[in-house]
Amino acid sequence: MDNLKRRRGRPKISQDAPANTKAVLLRAGLTWLTTTGFNLSSLDNILRSVQVPKGSFYHHFDNKEDFGLQVLDQYRRYFENKLDRSLKNDSVAPLQRLKNFMADASTSMARYDYRRGCLIGNLEVEVATLPTAFHQAIIDTYHSWQNKVAGCLRLAQAQGEISPDKECQYLAEIFWIGWEGAVSRARLVSSDIPLHQFGQFFLQQLLR
Amino acid sequence: MDNLKRRRGRPKISQDAPANTKAVLLRAGLTWLTTTGFNLSSLDNILRSVQVPKGSFYHHFDNKEDFGLQVLDQYRRYFENKLDRSLKNDSVAPLQRLKNFMADASTSMARYDYRRGCLIGNLEVEVATLPTAFHQAIIDTYHSWQNKVAGCLRLAQAQGEISPDKECQYLAEIFWIGWEGAVSRARLVSSDIPLHQFGQFFLQQLLR
Repeated sequence: MDNLKRRRGRPKISQDAPANTKAVLLRAGLTWLTTTGFNLSSLDNILRSVQVPKGSFYHHFDNKEDFGLQVLDQYRRYFENKLDRSLKNDSVAPLQRLKNFMADASTSMARYDYRRGCLIGNLEVEVATLPTAFHQAIIDTYHSWQNKVAGCLRLAQAQGEISPDKECQYLAEIFWIGWEGAVSRARLVSSDIPLHQFGQFFLQQLLR
Repeated sequence: MDNLKRRRGRPKISQDAPANTKAVLLRAGLTWLTTTGFNLSSLDNILRSVQVPKGSFYHHFDNKEDFGLQVLDQYRRYFENKLDRSLKNDSVAPLQRLKNFMADASTSMARYDYRRGCLIGNLEVEVATLPTAFHQAIIDTYHSWQNKVAGCLRLAQAQGEISPDKECQYLAEIFWIGWEGAVSRARLVSSDIPLHQFGQFFLQQLLR
């Protein structure tokens, strides 16, 4: 839509179908939450950034907490799909799939110029000051992501890529513990080096 | 001082010597910053928590940014001493020193009931919304801590505890990337298990 031709004061988004408005709000919420976190994201600023009036917002969400939880849920599912695309790609050997996921995540961070972190890792640090519902939602998200990586590692084990004495569930937990540290550091130094460093270290451990 | 006997309205701390007031403020700042982060820590609340009037605060600090940077600097040095106590304890073999540091850090987290994270890891996540001076201060702190761990690993290498083909500086960077992820996760799940998981994984990699 051409901003210059838009009538003054007329909200751009509220003219769209309600389902679309909700999608626009969730997308804006994701940008804000991965950049500045939950507590610092002002609802007024988010709504202003996409020109959605408050009335429309409250048509879709009970309050900021409900909105935040729905953004989190959408991010969790977005990332589950992202993981599945790499980890269930059976044209590639299992460990290569994990490498592909890391390369993909690394490309995504570079695309946003390392301004965005992982929404879950960010909220994890804020957790002491978040409504309690976030706590379980973050834990559940890690479980879901860890299970996907564990499944891929078990397949690698079955195919003889990693030794049979490795505990795949345990390794998947370590992967996510360290990967979140690497994402946070990559953002700090605006570089993918920490991602490669941790990824390489993790994979070397599997191969031995 | 007995709170019940204190005269009403009389500030508890401002009667102390200025140097002591500064120490009290830095200690309070540390508690707030490791619990709720920089952005959410209100100066008014911090001052109220230790009953220091604003005038005294501005006697020691230019503003909230200056205060935050001095808290960070004090934390960095506190942690450098903590690292030195473990890593330079030459009554113990080098790798055991690193284990001792991890055990010590783990005990500290449990002591505060996992409510406090690592000040540096917390600020790292907030970095996009912090005054720019924090950015370099966080990077410098990691360099300092990494160098200390690298020194200990080189000693372990010289004494044959880890193989000569390992790059100690690189491993020390990985240690801090993953350790910060583990500290953050330990806080989320109120347990030291993530710390042990990552620590064990890291050490296993060294020994192979």
